[in-house]
Amino acid sequence: MTASAKFTVVPDGSVTSPKGFRAGGLHCGLKKTERHDLGVIVCDVPAAAAGVYTLNAFQAAPLRVTQMSIAAEGKLQAMLVNSGNANACTGQQGEDDAFAMRAAAARALGLAEHHVGVTSTGVIGELLPMTKVLGGIEQLPQRVKADGGDDFCQAILTTDLVQKMTCVRLTVNGKAVHIAGAAKGSGMIHPNMATMLGFMTTDALIDSSYLQQLLSRTTDNTFNMITVDGDTSTNDMVVVMASGLAENEALHPQHPDWEAFAAGFQYVGEYLAKAIARDGEGATKLIEVNVAGAASDDAARAIAKTVIGSSLVKSACFGADANWGRIIAAVGRAGQPVNTETVDIRLGDIMVLEQSRPVKFDEERAAEYLKGDFVQIQVDLHMADGKATGWGCDLTYDYVRINAAYRT
Amino acid sequence: MTASAKFTVVPDGSVTSPKGFRAGGLHCGLKKTERHDLGVIVCDVPAAAAGVYTLNAFQAAPLRVTQMSIAAEGKLQAMLVNSGNANACTGQQGEDDAFAMRAAAARALGLAEHHVGVTSTGVIGELLPMTKVLGGIEQLPQRVKADGGDDFCQAILTTDLVQKMTCVRLTVNGKAVHIAGAAKGSGMIHPNMATMLGFMTTDALIDSSYLQQLLSRTTDNTFNMITVDGDTSTNDMVVVMASGLAENEALHPQHPDWEAFAAGFQYVGEYLAKAIARDGEGATKLIEVNVAGAASDDAARAIAKTVIGSSLVKSACFGADANWGRIIAAVGRAGQPVNTETVDIRLGDIMVLEQSRPVKFDEERAAEYLKGDFVQIQVDLHMADGKATGWGCDLTYDYVRINAAYRT
Repeated sequence: MTASAKFTVVPDGSVTSPKGFRAGGLHCGLKKTERHDLGVIVCDVPAAAAGVYTLNAFQAAPLRVTQMSIAAEGKLQAMLVNSGNANACTGQQGEDDAFAMRAAAARALGLAEHHVGVTSTGVIGELLPMTKVLGGIEQLPQRVKADGGDDFCQAILTTDLVQKMTCVRLTVNGKAVHIAGAAKGSGMIHPNMATMLGFMTTDALIDSSYLQQLLSRTTDNTFNMITVDGDTSTNDMVVVMASGLAENEALHPQHPDWEAFAAGFQYVGEYLAKAIARDGEGATKLIEVNVAGAASDDAARAIAKTVIGSSLVKSACFGADANWGRIIAAVGRAGQPVNTETVDIRLGDIMVLEQSRPVKFDEERAAEYLKGDFVQIQVDLHMADGKATGWGCDLTYDYVRINAAYRT
Repeated sequence: MTASAKFTVVPDGSVTSPKGFRAGGLHCGLKKTERHDLGVIVCDVPAAAAGVYTLNAFQAAPLRVTQMSIAAEGKLQAMLVNSGNANACTGQQGEDDAFAMRAAAARALGLAEHHVGVTSTGVIGELLPMTKVLGGIEQLPQRVKADGGDDFCQAILTTDLVQKMTCVRLTVNGKAVHIAGAAKGSGMIHPNMATMLGFMTTDALIDSSYLQQLLSRTTDNTFNMITVDGDTSTNDMVVVMASGLAENEALHPQHPDWEAFAAGFQYVGEYLAKAIARDGEGATKLIEVNVAGAASDDAARAIAKTVIGSSLVKSACFGADANWGRIIAAVGRAGQPVNTETVDIRLGDIMVLEQSRPVKFDEERAAEYLKGDFVQIQVDLHMADGKATGWGCDLTYDYVRINAAYRT
């Protein structure tokens, strides 16, 4: 999806662009370098909140704490995050530490505990150095500012090469509404457990139940459609906070501006998801897989994720090899209905398979196309109307180098 | 499983060790080098036969032909194989070609067409050069001999580094019975579509329906428990032929020697499966994952396959990094019941996680262990009695190099 006429992208927009939000970050000592490792987003008022969480059975302690906070009232006024330590597989002590972080942040910021969410990313199975963390939390309020989006964004990065942040503006009841987001992708300095964290803010007035609905739907089409290496982290989480300070009439699915809001929301989610895929460990290019003509949208999603997750497809993209046999083999093993006689495959606009038959194509032109930093693989099953898009990256020597590196 | 007292491994045994089998191979021109690319196993009599086939929707034409042959009478007298071309995604012409190969082999060997099976491995989506193939088939009968197991084994290899063949001997009703097998693993010169082919022979007398039962069960615990890159080929197949020339009373599940026969059968399947994993593209080591204490054997299988398929776990093994966080994250995302408080993980005999809590262990000793060419990962869930073992290999620079290489 590109920015439609219904919303505009805010230049240099950040999670503090929506009304009511400030943010900040600092170095408290979890990362070995002097980079930020503790950050917070704060809202002037309790914001309607919603979250989606990893399906990994070993869900990290901070995720459980955040879920409890949101469950209490459907509101958050601050999201605290640390990088460098995931606080996962840390047992009762880890849970106590996550609660202690929440309590300390609430105290420092003068908020109710159940209005604070907590999230962590980093090494699994090590206890948090709580003296450093609590010391950092005490300093945090003085670092929170209206233009603190960059500082926050730095605090969530690990081996990410680029910051991932965006903001759109649209109109609801004639009022300007903003939707912003920041995310971190795969890669940890020490060690390398791919974790995906997403933070979205908006100043729209919207009930937390509708916000949850929208976040869940959007996540299915954006964050859940990317894969770097197929490994679902214990700490994945996306949280959205809506301050309501845009003073629109409350949004709901029958609201005349609902579709515009949903489109903006989808844009922010998709922007962040693609940014994470493009910045995957060792990646040299973004790969987009469009599946059309599938038996259902769910079938299309499963096929897109199988193709984008295939090590053979990913290696072929790295090597700029127009090896469509690997693509069709991935389509065939996705466990979804396929008519084996009607499949088209295109690399960009180069048709390589038509009605399941090889097409003579210009190998040199295809190789040129595949050498670019964006590769689009289009699969049309010609069965029904199901469609989906997934994003990933190529599999490179650097991926192996990064992930074979010894932790210490 | 190791060779128990119930059977012995036959030194230099091959698929022609069981009574009644001969084999051969030759170069007909499908491979660019002079290496064999056409092979056949022939039996003196129609042998009881059974097969298991890829679940990929784009099943290659030769697999359909072999299924038809076995369906006719439950018997095969010859298995023809070519490497260098998979005859997959080749439409009606590909199907006609597979039938033509079967007809030509039957004519050359003087057999009924429905007693001949056909299989192919190699590049997807290119039509077979039938003049070369048919010319080769005409020459094949003169190359078939009692010690032709090696020639056959060469004909099925592609980028495999080693031949994969074994044979065991056991006693049924006081008669010597042999079970042998040959397999090819992942890697094609041109291009590289991982295909797994297995061929088993035995001189035991056994009805094809019991043989199918045994093959399906054994495949679930052996061939289906390996993964090199998670990509299921369009051409995977395992076929077994039983000549009956050992003159035992027909085997069936209530036969007093059934368990001994089943154990020998499992040994051959497991030997070949491990050999394929060890020889995976770019691999430097065999990785074995033992899961115990799972909710069921099926749950244990799913968990073992998720761990062995994790790119992060595979990269860590290549880098000799005792990164158990990646192992437990893979356990947690397998979609199976897990008690998150009771998981033990061992690397070899080194306990790294006990009751889901990190254990202080000797990192140097662990790194030494992981540098070896065999790594065992043991996961005990302490929930119930489900158990399973899976095999795979590490993810290396060479895997990327091999699979990023341009096809031509």
